[in-house]
Amino acid sequence: MKLAVDVMGGDNAPQSALDGCRSAHDAFPDLELILVGDESQMKEDWLESSRVRIVHTTEKIESDDAPVKAVRRKKEASMVKAVQMVKDKEADACISAGNTGALMTAGLLIVGRIPGIERPALAPMLPTLDGGGFLLLDVGANMEAKASHLVQYAEMGSVYMNRVRGIEKPRVALLNVGAEGGKGTELVKEAFDGLEQADIHFIGNIEGRELLEGRADIVVTDGFSGNLVLKTIEGTALSLFQILRKELTSSLKNKLAAGVLKPAFKNVRSKLDYAEYGGAGLFGLQAPVIKAHGSSDGHAFFSAVRQAVTMHQENVIPMIRKAAEEE
Amino acid sequence: MKLAVDVMGGDNAPQSALDGCRSAHDAFPDLELILVGDESQMKEDWLESSRVRIVHTTEKIESDDAPVKAVRRKKEASMVKAVQMVKDKEADACISAGNTGALMTAGLLIVGRIPGIERPALAPMLPTLDGGGFLLLDVGANMEAKASHLVQYAEMGSVYMNRVRGIEKPRVALLNVGAEGGKGTELVKEAFDGLEQADIHFIGNIEGRELLEGRADIVVTDGFSGNLVLKTIEGTALSLFQILRKELTSSLKNKLAAGVLKPAFKNVRSKLDYAEYGGAGLFGLQAPVIKAHGSSDGHAFFSAVRQAVTMHQENVIPMIRKAAEEE
Repeated sequence: MKLAVDVMGGDNAPQSALDGCRSAHDAFPDLELILVGDESQMKEDWLESSRVRIVHTTEKIESDDAPVKAVRRKKEASMVKAVQMVKDKEADACISAGNTGALMTAGLLIVGRIPGIERPALAPMLPTLDGGGFLLLDVGANMEAKASHLVQYAEMGSVYMNRVRGIEKPRVALLNVGAEGGKGTELVKEAFDGLEQADIHFIGNIEGRELLEGRADIVVTDGFSGNLVLKTIEGTALSLFQILRKELTSSLKNKLAAGVLKPAFKNVRSKLDYAEYGGAGLFGLQAPVIKAHGSSDGHAFFSAVRQAVTMHQENVIPMIRKAAEEE
Repeated sequence: MKLAVDVMGGDNAPQSALDGCRSAHDAFPDLELILVGDESQMKEDWLESSRVRIVHTTEKIESDDAPVKAVRRKKEASMVKAVQMVKDKEADACISAGNTGALMTAGLLIVGRIPGIERPALAPMLPTLDGGGFLLLDVGANMEAKASHLVQYAEMGSVYMNRVRGIEKPRVALLNVGAEGGKGTELVKEAFDGLEQADIHFIGNIEGRELLEGRADIVVTDGFSGNLVLKTIEGTALSLFQILRKELTSSLKNKLAAGVLKPAFKNVRSKLDYAEYGGAGLFGLQAPVIKAHGSSDGHAFFSAVRQAVTMHQENVIPMIRKAAEEE
């Protein structure tokens, strides 16, 4: 497969993208990489490989650029060019760690929606205590969701978790403020009914408290709530680690004991590490468009590339297209 | 002041309520306690005090009772009787650790709203890294909020944080999915404009990631989002502690080192301890109605009683009434 990579996006560009792509180049012998960005910053030996092509551009979308304006005006930006290559069939999928809003806009405007899919959803994998993880959709592609959108998220997520994660009957839950049906806003009440009718394995509501417990493989919600919850999980974990670090280095005795526990702490962090779980897929588009986390290191970027490769290999997009046609 | 206490609510009833009330009885010499519940379970010596009155009832609202039905039918339930005493001016405020939905219903139906307040809000204090904490409203009293409701939450919260926490100009933030204005749903865009016009100290949007950093004294949001975020913070913290505990007891070496760090871990937990921050106030009603956390121990229940006492002493309700009249 051919993968177009925006190497200029994210906090650690272009190094994290290059590191991740190098690992992917070695891991997947059939992978052809098209690296879009500033040629003068891509000087490593492995880039001589016959499976690597560099598309040079110096324009790029900044993290604080207004998405729609940036995508419309910066036609030569690395992100826009990478997405355009998918549209032009020069690449099978694309990936960027840059401006999330701009990538969603470029995906929607340039690659376009699958016919029948009302709204695309941005869907990261989040960690769970048991290590399985769950897919959360939507985390911000679509702020004002309707019940029918949430049902489609569930259908797309089910195809993904089945094909990419090999789960036979992925468990779908609806993010809500209580365990029973009849709780929450009009939107979630209506979505609850729709999910019960849909051809998926719906297990009912899930509350914020249970998200990391691994009760569900897929959690559906509107983009506003999903974004709040995603960032709240990140913020709470970061704040806790910050307090812990402060306490555990507050005396020599503590420092010594904490030193002994370093591998244990590392285990804890790796259990919650986004890097292991790949990027966030923009589901509902005509090809895989993957958002790597803005603070990705090489390992996290590699996971995002692996996700794009697996989505392509496992025919996730054709399967979603088929599901949308059957509706 | 006179405080009506539902001693039969919560996971550890009646003991946590009795323990908390005993501490409050000793700490506040002007406090008169009206303990509503099963007399046969209230046999401690200190209950002989002239400042304690027991109102006997054996009926109670269960945690899984449907709120509206339970409040309407169980007229003799300890929670309903405690709330009714406020309505009948036999008590200045009331408190319960029982069924949250039932307490909100009883508060609204029996005590009633302050004229001019469109919707009451359930408002817990949440912990922050700097120890200050912040008030989050609403966490579920009102699922389908309008922008004008959020503005009133900000006004009520500002009165509370000013009077009870002594903050001269409490910083109000709007929970949203981005830092800039113009982000989020139509509701939050409209609320953003309303908050800019209101006579409060509005500092703009706050994201889920920043909630525990102490950037704001008051965070306003709709009841659905607030509930999700509240439970996600709780769930993430609990899950993290669970993984930590497992890792730190996985070997003898780890156990020994973790033993040394026990006081440090205790410090971390106490920084995040809801028990220190009191209960959740039901704001917008004609008298203080306080929800203590369902899993309250005696200390947490005491904090909730202290909150009711301070709200009464500092004239929070008359100040909110005045603010509502001036609108």
